[in-house]
Amino acid sequence: MQHLTESSVTERVLERISDCPDPRLKQVMTALIEHLHEFAREVALTPEEWKAGIDFLTAAGHVTDEKRQEFILLSDTLGLSALVDIVQNRSRSGEATESSLLGPFYRRGAPELPLGASIAGDTPGEPILVHGRVRSADGKPLAGALLDVWQAAPNGLYDLQDENQPEMNLRGRFRTDQSGRFRFRSVKPSSYPIPFDGPVGAMLRALGRHPYRPAHIHFIVAAPGYENLITALYIAGDPYLDSDAVFGSRESLVVGYRPGDGKESGAPYREAIEYDFVLAPAAETAAAVSGDHPQTGGRSV
Amino acid sequence: MQHLTESSVTERVLERISDCPDPRLKQVMTALIEHLHEFAREVALTPEEWKAGIDFLTAAGHVTDEKRQEFILLSDTLGLSALVDIVQNRSRSGEATESSLLGPFYRRGAPELPLGASIAGDTPGEPILVHGRVRSADGKPLAGALLDVWQAAPNGLYDLQDENQPEMNLRGRFRTDQSGRFRFRSVKPSSYPIPFDGPVGAMLRALGRHPYRPAHIHFIVAAPGYENLITALYIAGDPYLDSDAVFGSRESLVVGYRPGDGKESGAPYREAIEYDFVLAPAAETAAAVSGDHPQTGGRSV
Repeated sequence: MQHLTESSVTERVLERISDCPDPRLKQVMTALIEHLHEFAREVALTPEEWKAGIDFLTAAGHVTDEKRQEFILLSDTLGLSALVDIVQNRSRSGEATESSLLGPFYRRGAPELPLGASIAGDTPGEPILVHGRVRSADGKPLAGALLDVWQAAPNGLYDLQDENQPEMNLRGRFRTDQSGRFRFRSVKPSSYPIPFDGPVGAMLRALGRHPYRPAHIHFIVAAPGYENLITALYIAGDPYLDSDAVFGSRESLVVGYRPGDGKESGAPYREAIEYDFVLAPAAETAAAVSGDHPQTGGRSV
Repeated sequence: MQHLTESSVTERVLERISDCPDPRLKQVMTALIEHLHEFAREVALTPEEWKAGIDFLTAAGHVTDEKRQEFILLSDTLGLSALVDIVQNRSRSGEATESSLLGPFYRRGAPELPLGASIAGDTPGEPILVHGRVRSADGKPLAGALLDVWQAAPNGLYDLQDENQPEMNLRGRFRTDQSGRFRFRSVKPSSYPIPFDGPVGAMLRALGRHPYRPAHIHFIVAAPGYENLITALYIAGDPYLDSDAVFGSRESLVVGYRPGDGKESGAPYREAIEYDFVLAPAAETAAAVSGDHPQTGGRSV
């Protein structure tokens, strides 16, 4: 029986997974164990701090349900989600639109609506038009591309968080026309705090951080033969653009309101957002043509 | 607005906690963020793997309640708990008894019993005597030291896990006599699996690991002016001594059964365990004299 020391305990744990039948799982868990142990050694983590960590995870687990995902908030606020997103797109061409966080509020099954329709229903707010094109990196317009769109209401809440909003409010799916164009109506999004009444909120306060995200509209853009694009457009001038609590904002995704043409589908608006989404060709191994979004898995939140 | 890259995202997150008012929290979170990010970069963690991690933590949170602590099991099975324990005792004298894991089954408030009493009640099993001394590193016997003792029944279950055991079965507190001696009766402990019907069990299976702990008896030994000792005695010959699922067993804590004297408090036994616990002097800043056990915090499990 070997004597256990600060370094030999790591070797012992790694020996124990030497028979792991899945080489990728073994690789991921090896790195996880090494970094977890090195973290504890480096800061000389005390039993009291370890206990605080256990209590934090326990509280996060207990606040998590079908409509609230505290572990995703944790990953988002620690920058892990943004990093996974960037790593995932290591090989994506510089021509393609940058990706941004999916976030915890995506829902499958938003209604497919005709071009020009509004996703805002009766939601009070300043009406806007959102329009543009979907194209490939070499400039080809992509007809029939599917845009899955969602955003928070001007009160900063998604339908999932707000009993005064109807189901699927401010969500919709649109298909581009023959020239690759899309357009829909909505109301201006506003900056909002991520849910901060749980352990992640307590963590942000203890760290001296604010919980705000800059105003944005989420998009998943999918077309056969191209990588799914999970991204969002951020509104120029928002005070939280440079300090997004979840590190989602990107300079290339910032859009300004411009004076609009006045009417769309008979409804008035004064300002418009225009943006062209550029899709990267699907990697040979990717199943992107299915229209399934890997990061969303089977969750409905 | 800075462009985010695989490395700059880490800098951005660390900038965000630059105003953290608590220097130790800042130090711990800085190391945590750096290692978390380096882990994700090193293995190029995919969105699907990230999602599996979120789902794992969510499931662990949902299985955790007053009697089940999946996050402690996770920490234990990844060797983190053992490492924190070793780091905590970096400065402890080599003379003192080695510490071992508290584990998730400690309960406050076990009954204080007279020396020689049994903690096993009517539990079926092979009766044993456990006896020895508590002393300081320089050999001084410690009278009135408090031993908090707990173990699983021969069926491998703690009272908390087994509705057929009375409350506080196989738990007791004993005070050493004037010569620093203690003795109590029990039944032989057996090796047992940690709870493996949850996500940690699934993880162990995927890694090709078994869930067994070698047979052991837990102790917390406390005396005014000395560090609390959280440890356990492991039974010689147990097949899992070298592959404890939670990395708790230590060579210096392995004890064998010896033929016993035959009777204690009028009850027969054939075998006995003898062990002397050696306590380290309390660090000047430690509150060890209070009899409180920091690692247990306020939890009753």
